[in-house]
Amino acid sequence: MPETLDYLKRMTSPGNITPNLQQIMDGIEQLWPASLAESWDAVGLVVGRPEQEIRKVIWVVDPSLPVVEDAVQRGADLIISHHPLMLKPVNGVSALTPKGRVIHTMIENQCALLTAHTNGDSAVGGVSDVLAEILGLEECVPLTQAAGGLPEEGIGRVGYLASPTTLGDFAGKVYGILPKVAGGVRVSGPRDAIVSRVAICGGAGDSLFDAVRSANADVYVTADLRHHPALEAKEATLDGRPYLVDVSHFASEWMWLPAAAQSLINYAEDSGWDVEIMVSNVNSDPWDFCLNG
Amino acid sequence: MPETLDYLKRMTSPGNITPNLQQIMDGIEQLWPASLAESWDAVGLVVGRPEQEIRKVIWVVDPSLPVVEDAVQRGADLIISHHPLMLKPVNGVSALTPKGRVIHTMIENQCALLTAHTNGDSAVGGVSDVLAEILGLEECVPLTQAAGGLPEEGIGRVGYLASPTTLGDFAGKVYGILPKVAGGVRVSGPRDAIVSRVAICGGAGDSLFDAVRSANADVYVTADLRHHPALEAKEATLDGRPYLVDVSHFASEWMWLPAAAQSLINYAEDSGWDVEIMVSNVNSDPWDFCLNG
Amino acid sequence: MPETLDYLKRMTSPGNITPNLQQIMDGIEQLWPASLAESWDAVGLVVGRPEQEIRKVIWVVDPSLPVVEDAVQRGADLIISHHPLMLKPVNGVSALTPKGRVIHTMIENQCALLTAHTNGDSAVGGVSDVLAEILGLEECVPLTQAAGGLPEEGIGRVGYLASPTTLGDFAGKVYGILPKVAGGVRVSGPRDAIVSRVAICGGAGDSLFDAVRSANADVYVTADLRHHPALEAKEATLDGRPYLVDVSHFASEWMWLPAAAQSLINYAEDSGWDVEIMVSNVNSDPWDFCLNG
Amino acid sequence: MPETLDYLKRMTSPGNITPNLQQIMDGIEQLWPASLAESWDAVGLVVGRPEQEIRKVIWVVDPSLPVVEDAVQRGADLIISHHPLMLKPVNGVSALTPKGRVIHTMIENQCALLTAHTNGDSAVGGVSDVLAEILGLEECVPLTQAAGGLPEEGIGRVGYLASPTTLGDFAGKVYGILPKVAGGVRVSGPRDAIVSRVAICGGAGDSLFDAVRSANADVYVTADLRHHPALEAKEATLDGRPYLVDVSHFASEWMWLPAAAQSLINYAEDSGWDVEIMVSNVNSDPWDFCLNG
Amino acid sequence: MPETLDYLKRMTSPGNITPNLQQIMDGIEQLWPASLAESWDAVGLVVGRPEQEIRKVIWVVDPSLPVVEDAVQRGADLIISHHPLMLKPVNGVSALTPKGRVIHTMIENQCALLTAHTNGDSAVGGVSDVLAEILGLEECVPLTQAAGGLPEEGIGRVGYLASPTTLGDFAGKVYGILPKVAGGVRVSGPRDAIVSRVAICGGAGDSLFDAVRSANADVYVTADLRHHPALEAKEATLDGRPYLVDVSHFASEWMWLPAAAQSLINYAEDSGWDVEIMVSNVNSDPWDFCLNG
Amino acid sequence: MPETLDYLKRMTSPGNITPNLQQIMDGIEQLWPASLAESWDAVGLVVGRPEQEIRKVIWVVDPSLPVVEDAVQRGADLIISHHPLMLKPVNGVSALTPKGRVIHTMIENQCALLTAHTNGDSAVGGVSDVLAEILGLEECVPLTQAAGGLPEEGIGRVGYLASPTTLGDFAGKVYGILPKVAGGVRVSGPRDAIVSRVAICGGAGDSLFDAVRSANADVYVTADLRHHPALEAKEATLDGRPYLVDVSHFASEWMWLPAAAQSLINYAEDSGWDVEIMVSNVNSDPWDFCLNG
Repeated sequence: MPETLDYLKRMTSPGNITPNLQQIMDGIEQLWPASLAESWDAVGLVVGRPEQEIRKVIWVVDPSLPVVEDAVQRGADLIISHHPLMLKPVNGVSALTPKGRVIHTMIENQCALLTAHTNGDSAVGGVSDVLAEILGLEECVPLTQAAGGLPEEGIGRVGYLASPTTLGDFAGKVYGILPKVAGGVRVSGPRDAIVSRVAICGGAGDSLFDAVRSANADVYVTADLRHHPALEAKEATLDGRPYLVDVSHFASEWMWLPAAAQSLINYAEDSGWDVEIMVSNVNSDPWDFCLNG
Repeated sequence: MPETLDYLKRMTSPGNITPNLQQIMDGIEQLWPASLAESWDAVGLVVGRPEQEIRKVIWVVDPSLPVVEDAVQRGADLIISHHPLMLKPVNGVSALTPKGRVIHTMIENQCALLTAHTNGDSAVGGVSDVLAEILGLEECVPLTQAAGGLPEEGIGRVGYLASPTTLGDFAGKVYGILPKVAGGVRVSGPRDAIVSRVAICGGAGDSLFDAVRSANADVYVTADLRHHPALEAKEATLDGRPYLVDVSHFASEWMWLPAAAQSLINYAEDSGWDVEIMVSNVNSDPWDFCLNG
Repeated sequence: MPETLDYLKRMTSPGNITPNLQQIMDGIEQLWPASLAESWDAVGLVVGRPEQEIRKVIWVVDPSLPVVEDAVQRGADLIISHHPLMLKPVNGVSALTPKGRVIHTMIENQCALLTAHTNGDSAVGGVSDVLAEILGLEECVPLTQAAGGLPEEGIGRVGYLASPTTLGDFAGKVYGILPKVAGGVRVSGPRDAIVSRVAICGGAGDSLFDAVRSANADVYVTADLRHHPALEAKEATLDGRPYLVDVSHFASEWMWLPAAAQSLINYAEDSGWDVEIMVSNVNSDPWDFCLNG
Repeated sequence: MPETLDYLKRMTSPGNITPNLQQIMDGIEQLWPASLAESWDAVGLVVGRPEQEIRKVIWVVDPSLPVVEDAVQRGADLIISHHPLMLKPVNGVSALTPKGRVIHTMIENQCALLTAHTNGDSAVGGVSDVLAEILGLEECVPLTQAAGGLPEEGIGRVGYLASPTTLGDFAGKVYGILPKVAGGVRVSGPRDAIVSRVAICGGAGDSLFDAVRSANADVYVTADLRHHPALEAKEATLDGRPYLVDVSHFASEWMWLPAAAQSLINYAEDSGWDVEIMVSNVNSDPWDFCLNG
Repeated sequence: MPETLDYLKRMTSPGNITPNLQQIMDGIEQLWPASLAESWDAVGLVVGRPEQEIRKVIWVVDPSLPVVEDAVQRGADLIISHHPLMLKPVNGVSALTPKGRVIHTMIENQCALLTAHTNGDSAVGGVSDVLAEILGLEECVPLTQAAGGLPEEGIGRVGYLASPTTLGDFAGKVYGILPKVAGGVRVSGPRDAIVSRVAICGGAGDSLFDAVRSANADVYVTADLRHHPALEAKEATLDGRPYLVDVSHFASEWMWLPAAAQSLINYAEDSGWDVEIMVSNVNSDPWDFCLNG
Repeated sequence: MPETLDYLKRMTSPGNITPNLQQIMDGIEQLWPASLAESWDAVGLVVGRPEQEIRKVIWVVDPSLPVVEDAVQRGADLIISHHPLMLKPVNGVSALTPKGRVIHTMIENQCALLTAHTNGDSAVGGVSDVLAEILGLEECVPLTQAAGGLPEEGIGRVGYLASPTTLGDFAGKVYGILPKVAGGVRVSGPRDAIVSRVAICGGAGDSLFDAVRSANADVYVTADLRHHPALEAKEATLDGRPYLVDVSHFASEWMWLPAAAQSLINYAEDSGWDVEIMVSNVNSDPWDFCLNG
């Protein structure tokens, strides 16, 4: 039932070398090193033979079956996903399970799968970094330090708007920038409160409330906030800040794909590769419609 | 920043005995026995002296500070909450923490706090049972059995609509019944799919997907569904069912309060008590406004 | 580097229905129910789509790459293995790992993989049961009860030889029956001791010593005995019994394959299937040669 | 049933500023920093609002109900206790439990509760430090280092008597110094053994025997020694040392209160506060009488 | 440094069979079955060869070195102890440790060691049962049920005094019955309170407070009560009951030895054994003197 | 049933001081410091009194009963074993268990037991170091670093053969050097493959495969390799290396005894001791004969 996003980024690197999968993996490692990933994460190659040739790469948020089928139909040799296919490990990959159906579809169509998850979140040019740039945040620093990373690497970002604005206008700006999904953008706080310092975390950021408060943010943009964490966050300080802007998990992370694809195409051009790189426009936000108002 | 719901239920029992807290606790135990609560839960008396007299009781979903301050201002001697104040145990209750501020406010105003959580969920006449009745479900049974409970007790309910309808119309009915909150109702599935068998779970029900699938439900109504559980639920079966209707955690559980208050007022009348019982109309859903469409 | 066993069993069921994978799985479930497997085990379908047609099945002990490549070359649609491919669960199946190379080879060649491990051990007609029959044990019972199984199901077997013999002669009989592998048969105990009561456990049986002693066995036949368990077993009783006969893990379990294949061919004939069933003759015992004497 | 100790220390700081609770907390943090507390401990503010004014402070060992009721009756705005009220965390504070009755009594009487436990033990001027000074120990060092503390901070102390004496005379000196409680002082060792090097630990010190032996103490003064630890300690060395002097847990820690109160009054005078500081004389040693001799 | 108790029980069985250790073990198993021991306990044979002949048995509370040396000097072939020598398991028994010194002393002197601990506590005729009888308790039942035991078996006992008396007189009776040790008997509660229902537990009984309260005991006699458990027990009920009588761990369990020795001599006589049985009079209470009053 | 090895090393130190056990322990500590042992290990003195005089020391691999009885018969005052007697700790040492029978035999015969296990493995001059020297390895370094040890200390060794040879010839050399045991030497790999870089680990080395591969070894010599680890090791790299040479656990560690005895005799001579040192020739390999060929 996935709906189609309007935007579909497509880029070509005009080299004359057809890279193999191992070479692409080397490039990804240089751009988003696996050492930046959290210890509980599962990043890197999930499906594929290192020696296979890669002519078309498609970037996606979720390696779910409709997304993968669309990519295969478009001729992808490699899917690079933000979310791991199997964060919970498995003893088998039969087509009795959804994950197994994805793996069968990929191997049957000679399409590889590579994941850049929390390494993609933490890196300079990563998910939150890109969101911060699009929102125009200044004096931006990570919300948390990546273990063993540089000072400018880590999950989430916090910085200042170019000029203070109301919570209502800021939320409107967020809403206008993100790809349209069924659920919209939910806000906790008064529309006319003035906000200046903004914390963001692409994807589900409810584990970072302590860091957000320590950073004295006026407002926190993240996804997948549930009743109890949101309510407790509202009560944790006496003045009600940080206000909360809850966006689509998918939409917030999809914002990274064009920028990530651009980084890889630059790397491809530097390497003299003949490769095409696309961004998937299949919407994997789970919601199809919303009743409100 | 809580908004005010329109509805505020107020009932009086015209007896001539002023009950004390212990007697109210005995009544609650009879209606929603603590033995029905899950092992990880924290139900029962949280604040108060058993011998204090109770003249006014207010039912609430969340014992958060604005909700408690409103109740105290209305003269409540006892708040009965659905959610526990301190599911995570504490070593102190100073006003440095939100939970401590609530406890100080209550004891300073001689207001007690009693919680009926998963015992209120599981009981006949509990949260999901009331939702099922309001939605007109027939041949209704629990989604899961309460350990040591009767066959008709347990978390969640599943049953049939009086007549099949489209997912769009069904979602519209859910939307129309629940108190209005900022976030509305989100739906996963095609508007025109026909649904007949409905599973519901008030509050966050993402741990019950296996039971929902075993029950062959066409649609599942619950709250707080996040990206990954929702997406994985969509892929777990080959025909896309159960479709999902994601509602406000607060709103879904608030629906129980008028029915619960009515049960207690009946008990009060049978006991000859002189007591007033109200349902709080303070909205503790964390979201204040939503941008969409 | 695997050597070739002489024996290669091949059987045909002359029906006119081409079964699909799901139907084969139903047959396996009837013969060696998954409920008999130990809780830590990983049995059932590992690779494959339930709807694919199966014309050739090959039974193997280990789904290692040389074994799988041989089966694929012979045209197998389905490999049934005794050992699980991935007892330790994985987050990915890329060809960077040996397990991933096996999975790619199988899916690329449309060959499925099904495992019957401790359910195959415990069942009547299972690994130890077949060994006991070949050794001519009488009054045979399981060494341990399968949880929830029948009295005649369980891991290992113990029974009496038709007539007492010396340990040397008994070991010679074991050596003569098993397929030849590099390591031979090792024995702990005096050649001329008389033995009558025999315990056996196909594969690694060092966790069953307590059961073997309780069963008053004179000799215990199993595989993969290491220095400390063997030495401690020798000292655990005052008369030195049970004596130990350590065989090849592979060889002891390979003995089951012809019998298991026969059971399945019988099931296939009863079902009117047109299917060919073989036993792999690729030796996956890890040892290539042995220096001794 | 608590009996009354003779001694009740009362001190006044003649400033003209009425401090609030937060200011007192800042002073306590400077004198006995929370960072010195053990990781399992629960120190700091337990009850109270930081902005409330404090005019009378009472120091106690145990925040048990009789102790708290006495302090409230004497007009205390703040109780500073050595023992935590709730080392084991709780989900509620209703008056059904003893801890809850204490919390109700305190909040109903606007009396706050602050705890300095193992930070009070480890600090210079802490429990064991004060005991060591009263016993006249020389060249005194901690028995254990506080993690992250200075060399002179840590639990327990060990040093030399000014001149060697007999165990009997030393025990008599300990007995004479401590407040009288029902159980007296128990000694393990010969009355006429000469002792010179003394280890002490206020409260229950049976976890420090290794440190005491490493320090080559002749005698160890602590509380709450039970049969097995005491007997094993006697046997752990070949010459029977360290001998043991078992005192009242309450009495050994009460010795700290006058010194701690003096430190706080000094801080109050330096801050120009108008505040009264007392030491509770309610005995919370659990024993009321003893049969012996 | 142990002092000598006055009492030393010595009994002879005039049979003509010299039993071996295995036969004694069989008798002990019949009288105090190992199945009655708690799961964490370590009972049974600790040192000795089952075939060695036993002519003299000595019962002791603690198998500490002075106790064992005294027994060996008196010619014991077997020590039966109430306390396990090594409840915490060991990797070695060298004479570098106290436990190792005991083991060397025993094996060098051909003296075996057998332990009856919580099986001795729980049995009819066990530690608490004997104490209850000496105190004249009526309608006596166990405080806790032994898992898999009879209704009359279990740790602790509770019953009624023949006639109510004051707490002071009751404590005096307890003091008069027990062997004299340095520490005396400590009491929590008012001397003139009337007590009638008595709970007892030989040894350290602070884990049984819930059972004692459930049994509505007026007073609880046990050993090794520390400050916090005793203080919390005093506050757990509103009327201060159960009052507490804290006795010597050693003394309370020593009371069992003469009765246990008598049971064994009866068994020996029935078996026609020629064996001498004694009760050790070496005091292993750790305290040598006490300062009080 | 143990067979007798041909070789029995016997050395005498012609000093005039009879050392006691403590002095021997000091020497062992200097040669193979306990700090080099793994954290899970149990090394040091197991049986014996530090003050006893030592005139005859016997080195053994396993302190099993036949080995100990042989040593005692030869008049040993001290056995130094490579393997711990009780790696799994015990609550008792009665002769009902094999370990207890060993302890009784030793103490009854005034023979002490001292263990040097993983400290003996890791040290320079330790088990793998001696094996490497006998095999003529050059540029030898440890496979793993000992925590807190020097760079040249650690478990296992890896180095180069003086000149490359075939796997068959290399295995023949290993077979020729080790004491003869029933099971011989098993090899995985082609006889004519050329090997140059050799990794070795005395005893069971299946936990070191990662280190062996990182060290780029052509062949790995160790003991107790079971089916699954060996098979997975074969598949872990694409070229089949490292090849495997599986030897007797006992034999590989026995090789260390003459060298270790020599080190101790040197220490004894330096100390002026009058002591005799032997190497046990009792074979504790569990296997008595092997059928093969």
